[in-house]
Amino acid sequence: MKLNELGERKIIKELGKIFGMHAVEDDCAIVPLTSCYFLLLTTDTITGRMHIPETASPWQIGYYACAVNLSDIAAMGGFPVGLLFATTYPKDMEMETVLEIAKGINDCASIHGTAVLGGDTKEGNELVISGTAVGKVKKTMLMRRRGAKPGDGVFITGSVGRGGTAMLKLKNNYDVSTATKELLEIQPRITLARQIVRLGNITSAIDTSDGLASALVQLRELNGVGFRIEWDEHFPVYKDAEKIAAMFNVDILSVIFYGGDYEILFTVDKETSEEFEKKCRRKHCAISRIGTVTKRDAIVLVREGQVRDIQGYGYEHFSCKKHIGGIGGPSGNFRLQNTI
Amino acid sequence: MKLNELGERKIIKELGKIFGMHAVEDDCAIVPLTSCYFLLLTTDTITGRMHIPETASPWQIGYYACAVNLSDIAAMGGFPVGLLFATTYPKDMEMETVLEIAKGINDCASIHGTAVLGGDTKEGNELVISGTAVGKVKKTMLMRRRGAKPGDGVFITGSVGRGGTAMLKLKNNYDVSTATKELLEIQPRITLARQIVRLGNITSAIDTSDGLASALVQLRELNGVGFRIEWDEHFPVYKDAEKIAAMFNVDILSVIFYGGDYEILFTVDKETSEEFEKKCRRKHCAISRIGTVTKRDAIVLVREGQVRDIQGYGYEHFSCKKHIGGIGGPSGNFRLQNTI
Repeated sequence: MKLNELGERKIIKELGKIFGMHAVEDDCAIVPLTSCYFLLLTTDTITGRMHIPETASPWQIGYYACAVNLSDIAAMGGFPVGLLFATTYPKDMEMETVLEIAKGINDCASIHGTAVLGGDTKEGNELVISGTAVGKVKKTMLMRRRGAKPGDGVFITGSVGRGGTAMLKLKNNYDVSTATKELLEIQPRITLARQIVRLGNITSAIDTSDGLASALVQLRELNGVGFRIEWDEHFPVYKDAEKIAAMFNVDILSVIFYGGDYEILFTVDKETSEEFEKKCRRKHCAISRIGTVTKRDAIVLVREGQVRDIQGYGYEHFSCKKHIGGIGGPSGNFRLQNTI
Repeated sequence: MKLNELGERKIIKELGKIFGMHAVEDDCAIVPLTSCYFLLLTTDTITGRMHIPETASPWQIGYYACAVNLSDIAAMGGFPVGLLFATTYPKDMEMETVLEIAKGINDCASIHGTAVLGGDTKEGNELVISGTAVGKVKKTMLMRRRGAKPGDGVFITGSVGRGGTAMLKLKNNYDVSTATKELLEIQPRITLARQIVRLGNITSAIDTSDGLASALVQLRELNGVGFRIEWDEHFPVYKDAEKIAAMFNVDILSVIFYGGDYEILFTVDKETSEEFEKKCRRKHCAISRIGTVTKRDAIVLVREGQVRDIQGYGYEHFSCKKHIGGIGGPSGNFRLQNTI
């Protein structure tokens, strides 16, 4: 059977069997390093074909290729130790383009306190940038996807809908320069993630690179729980999202729930979640409570008194089922916890 | 200027400037890990277009993609901690092919005492397999490229000419099944490398994935030395090499010096190199002394009383200058030593 008849999730499931992995448990692979630290390993590939809008500058492509890898380290509470980039370029590419991509990668690494330690450069049919991030996390500060319990508070860093808004603008050829920036110049939440781990008892965490709905579904499946998301006046909607959704006559929910945002969705132990919220407010952390973990396995959204079910679907490679949300995201990832 | 007007080495030099790397110093990037250990990081990409003969099975492609990365870890005296694979597949590829590639990767990892910890799967125009190997080495056991001094003994693991012999067979459509096996089913010298570090004072080491001549040139440039290579009856010529070279009327030197072999070329401190050789003989290590480090920067070969200069050239991506040697090799690599 050909790959496009199967779709990405089935492919990854089959690959996981060969590599002895039963489920994607976390944003990175975890390797015990010393008595105090874990090593975190993650890899994400950007291809010209799937990920990058035509309006992107080479610098932005490089920046994004670096940032998506750092986001995986952030989602587990880690800090980056270094990066590797294996890249194939078409042979008729301009050297200036190659150097601008490298500057984007290097600037992103440097902004986030890390560096490119090595790489590989090969000739290929198309631009393919495979980044690997290596991170480190104190065992006591590790955040994992597994652990959410009914009653826990549901939180998110930053805002939701940036990716969806950007995709909608691009699709309609509206303010493409800002949209490209919103889509690619993402901020991996490395510092913020480490701050929230210090302030509360985090029971689970995941990045929203495939969209909020997809992140919720993944936490639901791993933890056997449900979610009640409450959209009130404090719900952190991305600044432009409502205006842009109205302008192009699109349901705001699809912009909010199905666009890749590279924020961290996390849950906080029910006993400490109120105290956590207060501490975050005092420290001016950019986090918002958006709901509560529930017993039943549904994901419901409560908004203006109405209750709706949220379905989880996002972008899938090797498949025709494409959605507004995401520009690829890390849905092709598989990872394993292992020991040295 | 376009990439094919520049060639790979110039491209890498320019990229190195952006990433703050001044030269390719080693087979892996080195990161201090604990007071006793370094972390080793390396990445190597295999593309269908550049590396793989048409006669290769998907299993062999996967095996090779894994082995080239492990060879870099071996060349520094390290042992592998884990691997990541970021792969793009064309959407019309058969699932069976994808699974056979994965089995090849997994079998190679497993044979060499390690495992695939994670990866990424994306759709692309062509098959691109970017592997990343993470290794660990005791600080006292690290082998580096820099350190060779005049008078040091020059040694090599295994034999030389396997890659060149295989390329020659393939080019002439002769015994292609064996040739494909010789080319792709390479044995990264992880255990042997760690054994030699224990037996002697290794002053420098490099893998011969770009060919013996290229490895010698790289050691010469980094260390400001020369080499006198002595081809006597003990010179470890690959079993088939002389027969195949004669059969196709090719100079045996080009088969020996310009084919990628994935052996480790290393130098041993002159005071201890005789003792080292004896110890290796007692332990039945597959190593041979092939010469001596010299003061002058030439690389000379002494064979049957004749003295010849050896020029260093190998395969270069993005360029028309192709040679019998190598099927790509890791010549696209750049790496940096850094601190956490």
